[in-house]
Amino acid sequence: MQQPADTTSAAGASSSKPKGPSPLAPLNFPSLPPVPGVRVAAGEAGLRYRTRSDLLLVELAPTTTAAGVTTKSKTASAPVEWCRVRLKTGKGRALVANAGNSNAFTGKAGVVAVKRTAVAAAKALGCKPTEVYIASTGVIGEPIKVEKIEAAIGPTAAKLGDAGWQAAADSIRTTDTFAKGVTRRARIGKATVVINGIAKGSGMIAPDMATMFAFLFTDAAIPARVLQKLVSELNETTFNAITVDSDTSTSDTLLVFATGQGAKHPPVKSATDKHLREFKVALHEAMLDLALQIVRDGEGASKFVRINVSGAKTVKAAKQIGLTIANSPLVKTALAGEDPNWGRVVAAVGKSGEHASRDKLKIAFGPHAVAAKGAVVPGYVEAPVAAYMKGKELEIHVDVGVGKSKFTVWTCDLGYDYIRINASYRS
Amino acid sequence: MQQPADTTSAAGASSSKPKGPSPLAPLNFPSLPPVPGVRVAAGEAGLRYRTRSDLLLVELAPTTTAAGVTTKSKTASAPVEWCRVRLKTGKGRALVANAGNSNAFTGKAGVVAVKRTAVAAAKALGCKPTEVYIASTGVIGEPIKVEKIEAAIGPTAAKLGDAGWQAAADSIRTTDTFAKGVTRRARIGKATVVINGIAKGSGMIAPDMATMFAFLFTDAAIPARVLQKLVSELNETTFNAITVDSDTSTSDTLLVFATGQGAKHPPVKSATDKHLREFKVALHEAMLDLALQIVRDGEGASKFVRINVSGAKTVKAAKQIGLTIANSPLVKTALAGEDPNWGRVVAAVGKSGEHASRDKLKIAFGPHAVAAKGAVVPGYVEAPVAAYMKGKELEIHVDVGVGKSKFTVWTCDLGYDYIRINASYRS
Repeated sequence: MQQPADTTSAAGASSSKPKGPSPLAPLNFPSLPPVPGVRVAAGEAGLRYRTRSDLLLVELAPTTTAAGVTTKSKTASAPVEWCRVRLKTGKGRALVANAGNSNAFTGKAGVVAVKRTAVAAAKALGCKPTEVYIASTGVIGEPIKVEKIEAAIGPTAAKLGDAGWQAAADSIRTTDTFAKGVTRRARIGKATVVINGIAKGSGMIAPDMATMFAFLFTDAAIPARVLQKLVSELNETTFNAITVDSDTSTSDTLLVFATGQGAKHPPVKSATDKHLREFKVALHEAMLDLALQIVRDGEGASKFVRINVSGAKTVKAAKQIGLTIANSPLVKTALAGEDPNWGRVVAAVGKSGEHASRDKLKIAFGPHAVAAKGAVVPGYVEAPVAAYMKGKELEIHVDVGVGKSKFTVWTCDLGYDYIRINASYRS
Repeated sequence: MQQPADTTSAAGASSSKPKGPSPLAPLNFPSLPPVPGVRVAAGEAGLRYRTRSDLLLVELAPTTTAAGVTTKSKTASAPVEWCRVRLKTGKGRALVANAGNSNAFTGKAGVVAVKRTAVAAAKALGCKPTEVYIASTGVIGEPIKVEKIEAAIGPTAAKLGDAGWQAAADSIRTTDTFAKGVTRRARIGKATVVINGIAKGSGMIAPDMATMFAFLFTDAAIPARVLQKLVSELNETTFNAITVDSDTSTSDTLLVFATGQGAKHPPVKSATDKHLREFKVALHEAMLDLALQIVRDGEGASKFVRINVSGAKTVKAAKQIGLTIANSPLVKTALAGEDPNWGRVVAAVGKSGEHASRDKLKIAFGPHAVAAKGAVVPGYVEAPVAAYMKGKELEIHVDVGVGKSKFTVWTCDLGYDYIRINASYRS
């Protein structure tokens, strides 16, 4: 999404306005408890959207550590570049995020806008500008009206509280058809800590990073170095394991903050600390849950598809094969057409460039084996497989027969609605 | 095309039957003269199509040298594997190509089918089976009914002649909406030689190789080693510089045959031989013409798009940037929507992973500069650019500002019709 989401919908093209939640959306926004040390508020800067919130403000306790991952795009936005510098400090006191303008490819004016936003937030919250993280999503290349953000920060700060998580998730939506949130609890020693997360994204989703914002908050006390290690590692199997349309954004931002304001727990010294075991599982679950919500909101998606690759030489190869299948327009259109077209899966495996044994390749759609030993399975009957493809949640299993490594990626189909959303003119 | 083309249209899904030539098609099939040493015929094997030819037979003089490039897919078809071995000899006496079944992922039966086809052709033409090249396009994973090919070869051989080039080009079509042919002349010394070519392909087109068949024939006398060098080199800026949907096929086959049966010319000893200069230009033109016809027949295409990348560190980087732009679903859908959405071009440059200067990046649509120095151009007015985007033939210029290398790629847009063609069920 980012720019494309916004450039199509934000300007009000009626054909691309979300018409209701994705058919793959979860039933409800989960109930997120307060996170000690975190206060959130949604505000209205009126950057592009007229009748909804578009500004997120988060205040973090002075003890907060920070970690994160940003886009690998070579044309990253000004806010991304700002966050990269902030992340080196491992600390954070505030987060400002806006929807409607990504402040990407805006030249020097964009850099100035980021600084002014940080100054305004720092003033409102009583911290330093360099302690403020900034994330912007929306149109690329349009100067951002920073004075609108500056004007909105004060009124938004006045609303800060520990309960407004759904409003927070709503404020960062662009073409998202539903607000994305998650919560988990974990014990560290005898203390129970909480992890809350919100995210946005529904197109231009691809690894390195999946185009999106994901902001997670915990009251645990985790040194920045340890937190960064955990986040970088877990990112690989969560946000970097999903793809909607293979496009990478200029604004991807994953930030995780640990306030240290929760129940007292044994000090944590390394990412492999035994006290962290349960926390790591919970953080992984929270990140994966948000990542999969983004896939479920894939632009125009009607199928949620899990692709399990096994039998590869290395995990990296398994991932590459999985992503090649997931990104193949021909596989994706076959999924939209509910067609168990395993020939296209074979072609995608071949396209990946990774080692695979054509003559040992096995492919199954859900419980239905379709191909093995270099050919269709003996006595293959398509009707039950075709019936399976009519489901909303699908699995494709591919064993490439040359090793023991595996990887799982998630994606969605490519149907008319993706074109409708992305080919409609911006204004 | 290949499997996907066939799996959607060949089985007769009414929605995916070509409804007439692509709006980007050339006006006519060109008039191809005879090529001394080459006889062609189209036949009917009835593999899948009922009311048209689906078999191409080409007889080549005993003096013929051969060169070619095949798909880089790791799941290549049985015919591709057969051709790879044949190409090592540098010789060829015949070519058999069929449409409707790609004989890919068909296990041992597929290998046997290729051999039987070669034996049948060799018998009909009085050569050795190992002198026969074979190419198959169509459904992946379905056993090919080789007895139908065997039965059709005799009657087809009886029709061999030097004039049936359009029929030849027709016989290898799958979802192609028009037959693709080209002819060029060139002087080698004082002799004039001819180059004829035919091709097929309209989806699953991507570099390494562009998914397609292209068969070219000349009466020049070119040693196999020299011919291979020329073909490999020219392939990089022709068939490997086009992309329709980024998908790679299991059956891509480019074959070039030189019969040595034309007017006598000075012997050619190397690819850099001065006598070859004009021939090389003509061969490049013929290959590029066929490649661009394939783009013009891109499944569902309504825009023919040339992307010129300049200012890159290396040619390889320029090509990678060009292909990343060309393959970006968000760029392609914007083109379909006639939207000069240069923000998506910026995002694609960033996604390419290649070195580029965000702050020196220049983007133009045709004659209209839209972005420079890290931001939109001063005084940018969108109306004339939007008007330009309504044309059928578009150019995007991208200068990435870090070097002097350039590359040009060609692609088409991604619209509803691509989905219609590829998401419709096979049967």
